[in-house]
Amino acid sequence: MQDIATRVWNHKWKIDPVVRSLIDTDFYKLLMCQSVYRNRPDTQVTFSLINRSTHVPLAKLIDEGELREQLDHVRTLSLTRGESTWLRGNTFYGKRQMFRPDFMEWFENLRLPAYDLQRKGDQYELTFEGAWPEVMLWEIPALAILMELRSRAVTKHLGKFELQVLYARAMTRVWEKVERLKTLPDLRLADFGTRRRHGFLWQDWCVQALREGLGDNFGGTSNCLIAKNRDLEAIGTNAHELPMVYSALTTDDAALARAPYAVLADWHEEHDGNLRIILPDTYGTEGFLANAPDWLAGWTGIRIDSGDPATGAETAIRWWQERGEDPREKLVIFSDGLDVDKICALSAQFAGRVRVSFGWGTLLTNDFRGLVENDALAPFSLVCKAVEADGRPTVKLSDNPRKAMGPVEEVERYKRVFGVGEQVAADVVV
Amino acid sequence: MQDIATRVWNHKWKIDPVVRSLIDTDFYKLLMCQSVYRNRPDTQVTFSLINRSTHVPLAKLIDEGELREQLDHVRTLSLTRGESTWLRGNTFYGKRQMFRPDFMEWFENLRLPAYDLQRKGDQYELTFEGAWPEVMLWEIPALAILMELRSRAVTKHLGKFELQVLYARAMTRVWEKVERLKTLPDLRLADFGTRRRHGFLWQDWCVQALREGLGDNFGGTSNCLIAKNRDLEAIGTNAHELPMVYSALTTDDAALARAPYAVLADWHEEHDGNLRIILPDTYGTEGFLANAPDWLAGWTGIRIDSGDPATGAETAIRWWQERGEDPREKLVIFSDGLDVDKICALSAQFAGRVRVSFGWGTLLTNDFRGLVENDALAPFSLVCKAVEADGRPTVKLSDNPRKAMGPVEEVERYKRVFGVGEQVAADVVV
Repeated sequence: MQDIATRVWNHKWKIDPVVRSLIDTDFYKLLMCQSVYRNRPDTQVTFSLINRSTHVPLAKLIDEGELREQLDHVRTLSLTRGESTWLRGNTFYGKRQMFRPDFMEWFENLRLPAYDLQRKGDQYELTFEGAWPEVMLWEIPALAILMELRSRAVTKHLGKFELQVLYARAMTRVWEKVERLKTLPDLRLADFGTRRRHGFLWQDWCVQALREGLGDNFGGTSNCLIAKNRDLEAIGTNAHELPMVYSALTTDDAALARAPYAVLADWHEEHDGNLRIILPDTYGTEGFLANAPDWLAGWTGIRIDSGDPATGAETAIRWWQERGEDPREKLVIFSDGLDVDKICALSAQFAGRVRVSFGWGTLLTNDFRGLVENDALAPFSLVCKAVEADGRPTVKLSDNPRKAMGPVEEVERYKRVFGVGEQVAADVVV
Repeated sequence: MQDIATRVWNHKWKIDPVVRSLIDTDFYKLLMCQSVYRNRPDTQVTFSLINRSTHVPLAKLIDEGELREQLDHVRTLSLTRGESTWLRGNTFYGKRQMFRPDFMEWFENLRLPAYDLQRKGDQYELTFEGAWPEVMLWEIPALAILMELRSRAVTKHLGKFELQVLYARAMTRVWEKVERLKTLPDLRLADFGTRRRHGFLWQDWCVQALREGLGDNFGGTSNCLIAKNRDLEAIGTNAHELPMVYSALTTDDAALARAPYAVLADWHEEHDGNLRIILPDTYGTEGFLANAPDWLAGWTGIRIDSGDPATGAETAIRWWQERGEDPREKLVIFSDGLDVDKICALSAQFAGRVRVSFGWGTLLTNDFRGLVENDALAPFSLVCKAVEADGRPTVKLSDNPRKAMGPVEEVERYKRVFGVGEQVAADVVV
């Protein structure tokens, strides 16, 4: 039996916009947004899309009209009553009323600000300017839109069964990963794959497959909409944009050297427990830990997001030991370029030495490698970053020089201030 | 949007009975039924289910109540107006009005006769007795029901995503076969997989995948319902039951020796062109061809359904040459235990020497080998055969002694009458 109403509705409506809700975003964005809204509401920032995979000619693949349509659609979204209720009433990390009433009121009235889109050769320049709490919320939807429009551009030429088999293969691949992960004792793993997902429906499928396959070893998802719809934990803490903007706003080297800790001091005041997670690599993990104030060693854990992950974790373990902390009570969250081999190896290496958890991103929600001709659905390295704050450029060094960002002279200055020497370069796949 | 009416309908109705139409059967059954209805309408036959794979304990796997329910459901079916119109009005093998008005009128009023079901140890004894034209129509639905109830018994314990991945894997496997078959020049292939299919919906999927993947190289399906629904050619000619019953009805050796040719004489009168396909192996291909009347060499082709297929085809080619026929104008249809490797090998061996076509059965519509624990979905060898006609036992020798059927002393007598000596035994997988 046809549901005629649904069919007629579908005639006049666009089915499946890429981003269907303001909370189709990473949970940490909302946590950071609340922190920024309280501490730096007036900072003017510029966020920019950067395609590190220049071999993927986004402007040739994606129609500009379609891109504008999807971006415009996001600007029509506002928080629904149900979404607001979920954010206000839910318990996150065991805490009620994680989001303050003043922030929620502001968020309920928010529409995302304008964007600037220009085609430059085979790439798009997409930038967002304005007040930090507003502009920062563009990052995830902008990335998800570009990623999914690219998927759609590649898949639109496939036949119906070819398409079904494409997803059959991708599902089989995810499930084979799940079957390997099932064998790991004490696995803790969450979905961090929103930003570079193949598509929304696909991420939703992957998350549900992980839940069925891993049971309680699956901790939840960074995606608030999926967490809400599927009754899962929303997962996330904080990201590089906080130290990057705080640092850009400083006016001398001494203040710059203090900035990454100032960020965490603000965070310390707002959050405790599992939300106290150090992200140490913005300007080099080693220097960051060496110069860290003692109270930071009391935090719950650390997130390793660049460089060799095992090296990063060993560094953290040594640091905790030097500061008189027991690493077995600490949490290491791996979140950079993970796939099953790496998850298995890291699990084995750190079992019994430290609590470990994995934030699995792109190779969970976008592993279509080798599934179509010319590998045209392989994931690629697209980011959307704060590049300016109050007119001053931001800088990121990271533990992998290929992930560094910022004007050359500023990068050199930051390296000097944070004492970063030679770094090992590693390929950035995703 | 929910279609409430559909949901409410589903509440009160059994979704997806195994057999949903009297024409959810092989096309050749209807052709043979018409022939039997004209030539031997009063012959009393017994058909019996035989599970050659005794390691599959059907009675332990399949609930007797469910089995009765599905068999009873088939007895409620009668030809719908649309099905009747399709059979009456369609062009089959280029011929209009393949089915005569008197046969159609009889078929429109038909309900399938009673069945007898008894559990014997871990197996079921399922028999059908009555007039040949009625009883013979039980064969395909009976097999399809047992096969699909077994699939359902195995899959009912799987989780939702486990289940989806099971089908994802099976789809991927079919598609990989399609991709290999695509590379064969001049391939002619049809679906013969109704009787031992994994399930109706799965067969329907496989057929559609073949159509998209192989285009015009896909000739159609033996399943009338799917042919009708998907606007494909219905494919098929005749089967062993005709010579088996005709032979059983003879009362002396001389008449027995003539019986397999008497069948084809009846057929010759009714059909021409692509329907004149010899099925030579019922009592041994070699003797059958050696003693065949000359007019049979003028037929369009031959179907190889047991024994080594290449040997069978070479025998036929030599026979045509000896009778002054050009094998390049003849058709060899391979239909026994095919899978892609065999199809590729036979295509290569006979390219340019004879026209070749493939009737691909169980390993098209039921290749779930290795996809669940204990290989519990692997296809197995289930048949439903005429075992008696007017109180006399039937016999089948075939070109593979493992496919032989009938009482020992009768098998010996048939071997003597048809001059069948030593035979090469081959495993019967499906």
